[in-house]
Amino acid sequence: MRPALLLMACDLFNGSVLKALAPAVGIEVFHNFTLLHDDIMDKAPLRRGKPTVHAKWNESIAILSGDVMLVKAYELMMEVENDILRPVLAIFNQTATGVCEGQQIDMNFEALDGVSVAEYLEMIRLKTAVLLGGSLKIGTLIGNAPEEQAELLYQFGENLGLAFQLQDDILDVYGDPDKFGKLVGGDIISNKKTFLLIKAIELAEGLEKEELDYWLYAENVVSEDKVNAVTDLYNRLGVRQLAEEQMNKFAERALSALDKVAAEDDKKQALKIFAEKLLVREN
Amino acid sequence: MRPALLLMACDLFNGSVLKALAPAVGIEVFHNFTLLHDDIMDKAPLRRGKPTVHAKWNESIAILSGDVMLVKAYELMMEVENDILRPVLAIFNQTATGVCEGQQIDMNFEALDGVSVAEYLEMIRLKTAVLLGGSLKIGTLIGNAPEEQAELLYQFGENLGLAFQLQDDILDVYGDPDKFGKLVGGDIISNKKTFLLIKAIELAEGLEKEELDYWLYAENVVSEDKVNAVTDLYNRLGVRQLAEEQMNKFAERALSALDKVAAEDDKKQALKIFAEKLLVREN
Repeated sequence: MRPALLLMACDLFNGSVLKALAPAVGIEVFHNFTLLHDDIMDKAPLRRGKPTVHAKWNESIAILSGDVMLVKAYELMMEVENDILRPVLAIFNQTATGVCEGQQIDMNFEALDGVSVAEYLEMIRLKTAVLLGGSLKIGTLIGNAPEEQAELLYQFGENLGLAFQLQDDILDVYGDPDKFGKLVGGDIISNKKTFLLIKAIELAEGLEKEELDYWLYAENVVSEDKVNAVTDLYNRLGVRQLAEEQMNKFAERALSALDKVAAEDDKKQALKIFAEKLLVREN
Repeated sequence: MRPALLLMACDLFNGSVLKALAPAVGIEVFHNFTLLHDDIMDKAPLRRGKPTVHAKWNESIAILSGDVMLVKAYELMMEVENDILRPVLAIFNQTATGVCEGQQIDMNFEALDGVSVAEYLEMIRLKTAVLLGGSLKIGTLIGNAPEEQAELLYQFGENLGLAFQLQDDILDVYGDPDKFGKLVGGDIISNKKTFLLIKAIELAEGLEKEELDYWLYAENVVSEDKVNAVTDLYNRLGVRQLAEEQMNKFAERALSALDKVAAEDDKKQALKIFAEKLLVREN
């Protein structure tokens, strides 16, 4: 979706989509570099249903391949006209730094007890949302649109990314197992600090707090029992609805930024449809 | 030494050394990024006498810190005038790709039996020498010197880097334990495919070949015995002298490229002294 957003942003201003192709590939190479390294850190055996690079080859190869992919991403990103080379790379640097910082904060959360909703939203903003915003902003510059248009597209992308990640949290618990592609309840099993869990910890009192703590700290429990019990607690605490409200808030902000963009309505409509498809997905 | 070479190359053409400071720091940040990741791959506990990042914190932190250092290196490298931004980054991309490829080839060598001297020299060219060449070439461009001067400086740096790495191989076996800073014989203990070992495997025949094979494949041997025996074999086969001859050949090529550079003699002299100090070092 990141290369598609970059190309659509360029096309929005009637920019040459051909000129945006190499940077669009660069964004995708960058995203896959982060996946290679994230998979090492998460010790993930599978990615898109296939063995991860470190599992298939070894960890050193996954580290080095990721490194060289980041360099190749810069090479591809440099395939723009001279007059926008520096601003495009500046956005890319900022985006890449944000993604790395977001991943580090996410890992830090594992060892922390008290993560607030605000801290969580800042983490997913860095880890997920800035790359969507950055892709759109780069596409806008390649389309020769002025800075304030690029900024609006960035706002659209960042808010879309935040909504997308909240949808991810919701799907991990409430997704259809036949369509989700990953194990439903995976976040619950690993105590991952998602919006749902952070809200539940915030809201649970008395017996519900005791019950939640039990499942968070209990060892040797049956995964299915834990997923069922915690999902039931989420339902009683109403955290799914809170997550959906928060998600809709971001989605509205995204669409409101898009509304303000000075471009043809039918092209804006295409981006709007793309965004809506992202947010009503089942996997 | 890499930032120093970059600054000296800039100064050689009376370029503003102040303008070269940020890229010089960028080269050092890049070099340290490679050390962070190499130390993970080598499972090295110490670097410069202190715990490595992955040993002190953890591996994920070392991977991510390295990643973000590479991005910071690009940011610093971008602090050049617009008219040389693209060529400077192109050299940097090429250099970074070479360093990663060299590291991968070095790791591949561990599992290979027959590595030739030519393959070894190509590996150290990529892993060590291109970064010295790249540093000098970038400094030359910042000094506003023409392309053919940058190319001469690159030749100087690449050959200096090759000589430097051969000197490293020699020091690892023949260095003074009080001055070397690392364990003398470390390469022998780990069967590292250095110029000395590759030449020894090439030259050993009959009883000497049997003896070398014994030490290469024997398990549970006393490290000191292995170091003494293999060093003795190296002496009998004369591989130290061959390494020194090869090193001197590269050093001569480096100095001959420097001779051709169109710059003031006293400034060239400073680079020559720098190179000579690198090659007669004891650690």
